[in-house]
Amino acid sequence: MADTVFFKRQPPKNLKELAALSGADIADGADPSLLITDVAPLDTASIGQISFFDNVKYRPQLQSTKATACILSPEAASHAPSGTALLLSKSPYKSYALVAQAFYPDQKPQILISPAAHVDAAAEIGAGTVVDAGAVIGPGVKIGVNCRIGANAVISHALIGDNVRVYPGCCIGQDGFGFAIDPAGHVKVPQLGRVIIEDGAEIGANTCIDRGAGPDTVIGRGTWIDNLVQIGHNVKIGRGCIIVSQVGISGSTVIDDYVVLAGQVGIAGHLRIGKGVRVAAQSGIMRDVPAGEEVMGSPALPIKQKMRQVAFLNRMIKKGKDQKRNNG
Amino acid sequence: MADTVFFKRQPPKNLKELAALSGADIADGADPSLLITDVAPLDTASIGQISFFDNVKYRPQLQSTKATACILSPEAASHAPSGTALLLSKSPYKSYALVAQAFYPDQKPQILISPAAHVDAAAEIGAGTVVDAGAVIGPGVKIGVNCRIGANAVISHALIGDNVRVYPGCCIGQDGFGFAIDPAGHVKVPQLGRVIIEDGAEIGANTCIDRGAGPDTVIGRGTWIDNLVQIGHNVKIGRGCIIVSQVGISGSTVIDDYVVLAGQVGIAGHLRIGKGVRVAAQSGIMRDVPAGEEVMGSPALPIKQKMRQVAFLNRMIKKGKDQKRNNG
Amino acid sequence: MADTVFFKRQPPKNLKELAALSGADIADGADPSLLITDVAPLDTASIGQISFFDNVKYRPQLQSTKATACILSPEAASHAPSGTALLLSKSPYKSYALVAQAFYPDQKPQILISPAAHVDAAAEIGAGTVVDAGAVIGPGVKIGVNCRIGANAVISHALIGDNVRVYPGCCIGQDGFGFAIDPAGHVKVPQLGRVIIEDGAEIGANTCIDRGAGPDTVIGRGTWIDNLVQIGHNVKIGRGCIIVSQVGISGSTVIDDYVVLAGQVGIAGHLRIGKGVRVAAQSGIMRDVPAGEEVMGSPALPIKQKMRQVAFLNRMIKKGKDQKRNNG
Repeated sequence: MADTVFFKRQPPKNLKELAALSGADIADGADPSLLITDVAPLDTASIGQISFFDNVKYRPQLQSTKATACILSPEAASHAPSGTALLLSKSPYKSYALVAQAFYPDQKPQILISPAAHVDAAAEIGAGTVVDAGAVIGPGVKIGVNCRIGANAVISHALIGDNVRVYPGCCIGQDGFGFAIDPAGHVKVPQLGRVIIEDGAEIGANTCIDRGAGPDTVIGRGTWIDNLVQIGHNVKIGRGCIIVSQVGISGSTVIDDYVVLAGQVGIAGHLRIGKGVRVAAQSGIMRDVPAGEEVMGSPALPIKQKMRQVAFLNRMIKKGKDQKRNNG
Repeated sequence: MADTVFFKRQPPKNLKELAALSGADIADGADPSLLITDVAPLDTASIGQISFFDNVKYRPQLQSTKATACILSPEAASHAPSGTALLLSKSPYKSYALVAQAFYPDQKPQILISPAAHVDAAAEIGAGTVVDAGAVIGPGVKIGVNCRIGANAVISHALIGDNVRVYPGCCIGQDGFGFAIDPAGHVKVPQLGRVIIEDGAEIGANTCIDRGAGPDTVIGRGTWIDNLVQIGHNVKIGRGCIIVSQVGISGSTVIDDYVVLAGQVGIAGHLRIGKGVRVAAQSGIMRDVPAGEEVMGSPALPIKQKMRQVAFLNRMIKKGKDQKRNNG
Repeated sequence: MADTVFFKRQPPKNLKELAALSGADIADGADPSLLITDVAPLDTASIGQISFFDNVKYRPQLQSTKATACILSPEAASHAPSGTALLLSKSPYKSYALVAQAFYPDQKPQILISPAAHVDAAAEIGAGTVVDAGAVIGPGVKIGVNCRIGANAVISHALIGDNVRVYPGCCIGQDGFGFAIDPAGHVKVPQLGRVIIEDGAEIGANTCIDRGAGPDTVIGRGTWIDNLVQIGHNVKIGRGCIIVSQVGISGSTVIDDYVVLAGQVGIAGHLRIGKGVRVAAQSGIMRDVPAGEEVMGSPALPIKQKMRQVAFLNRMIKKGKDQKRNNG
């Protein structure tokens, strides 16, 4: 059960209500009027609670769960204990998310714009938007409705859509790393663009997004960015992308829709990463990547090629060891 | 055109003025009295605007630009549209930077030290230095003239020269990761040095610079550091270096003048990186690197050797694939 | 000598006092009543000062040191100049740390909780705990005694033990990167856990620790985390671990006691890293690592295997070069 010091739970709901709001089906034998009081992980759930199963690693936890109800795919249903009421969903994790949101809706502070925030008189903040303590919002910045700007975030030179979340400590809109190299002293190139963040995007804690040099830096609708990510000037990121922690994207690179960049990936500047590309953790991208490809490694290769490389090296090392043993 | 909400443009200037301030020469056939109103990228520039060309990747944009004037190298001049007035420069990007600065000089807020900044009474701030909201400046810190300290930056135990820029969210001068390992509880080693930042250096957003353990941590004159970089205690960085985002430099390493570290590079402690060394992105340095060398990879190798390694692996994988096909 | 603007030194102590407080033995011939006034590095130490030797790289500095006294291991004693008074310790660096702490004890500000900090009325702060300017502490957060919360740190949904240090700019307790992927818009999974930080832990500058999704995120007793580290939701870290700068640990991974993760290491989610494991810098961990193992590389291998891989590649490249020369 969530700590009531930090989280406020809504009243119980029955299985029928939960199925409806989560797009799941009640499995045969489950009672639609069964009352559910809370969500919980498989291994700690107890009577009255609903859990979910979506990763085969956790099958033992499913088999021994004491949850009253569980959301899972039809294929996984046979692994659940016989007494568990099942909600069947093609997207069990999404269904669980909707159930959990119903029990624990987002809470807003009573005073939306903290008196300890520093919002410039020439900034525009939309209705329902929360600005936490210590956030600094510069002149001319526009923020849409129902956004949340985290504590100590710093935003300048930016236009932000609706339902955007900026986490604590983010730096958005500062001028990027643009200069002409000169031994007598690098010469700064004025950075004359902005940062555009489209509706529904999320920007993680302590992430940095530099404003454009002339064009804008753009974060597309519904793209989610994790903590400690670096986005260089003029980068354009499409819709629905997922950018995991500590990724770095160099200036002027274009990332198409629905790209997934795993943790600590680095991407050089002036590249194009096609729609739906998936990049494995710690990869380093130095060339364009065509749409739909999966790549891995530094420098990155298509994932099958990289796997062959790893297997070849492992064979060679084993061979070397065997030779040594035979000669020894 | 830069968004006038965020940027204030100076009045038009003629080609002769722009050539003079940017160190460029007016090409034959261009009219020195031609009036230029603004800067813009090649592909969006229009009548009255000046652009620049400095990367062969953008040659198509040069060939079809509608810019009234363009700064480029004498060698590239033949690729520009015939009607474009040309400014010839050996350093087109530097010349462009100077032109752009003339149209968009740095703006200072009317009140230099934000009333929402927290400057200790025992700190010294030089004339013309801007301190933004939420910045925290500790006792004894000295900051020179014409610096800019970004919003929510935190500075302690530091002496900072003139014309230095510290971007938002930076943490400078905290005690570094110095302790004696002990299973009963690590024992902290008091960190008794300072951070010295010389004139003209720039420190990117959310970058961390730990103070020295006994000696100082030093950032040399005109060295530019990008966002989310980690600089350990006692590190000495020379002049004119370029340190790209998410680089990490471990304690007591010495970086000589004019070194370039690309993004996400990691350098172990107690090393010496010679003058003018260039390190490719994501490289990991575990030994000293002699002056002038270019290195790549983790662990890093001279760039030619690394290229041979990559080529060898690609051949082996191709060979393995061919054998499979022949055997199959 | 430490800059007196920033550091306040205690009165001189004699060798006998220093030996007692640091667990060292006075070597034959050294005078227990010898008065020591300060600590200093080997190369800059002068009369009245005590230094230490613990890294063979610095043997030349030991041999020529002008320090009046030096802490070192019995084995190293013969390398010290004959006139130097020696304190012999099996853990010279730990002994030095204790001596340095005696000369420079931690200083607290006169007002423990800065009036420029933003502490929620429903947060609990223990006795002797310092909260610096700009720190934001949310409702329900509990912080133990004798902690230090750095400037502009942001803490929510967290329970923090005694003697914990949170460095400037840290973000602790925000909701992690938990969502169901959906092309129509990712669906956020409410993050209903907390962050638990046990006694004596340290969390570096600008580091981010996400709260648990249902279980808690836990940082064990005496674990020290460097700057710019990312800790995902549900991560459990044991006691006495050392996590160097820019490491990223993905969600639900368990790190057992006394693990050392060097700089820029990345660890995938849902893994178990056994007790005492040591991971070399920039490694990428994609599988469980058994207790006691040392691993290196991305993907990581046991260190001996990785060394063989590196040696094999170097041989192949040399061979290719020789063939080229012979054929050329």
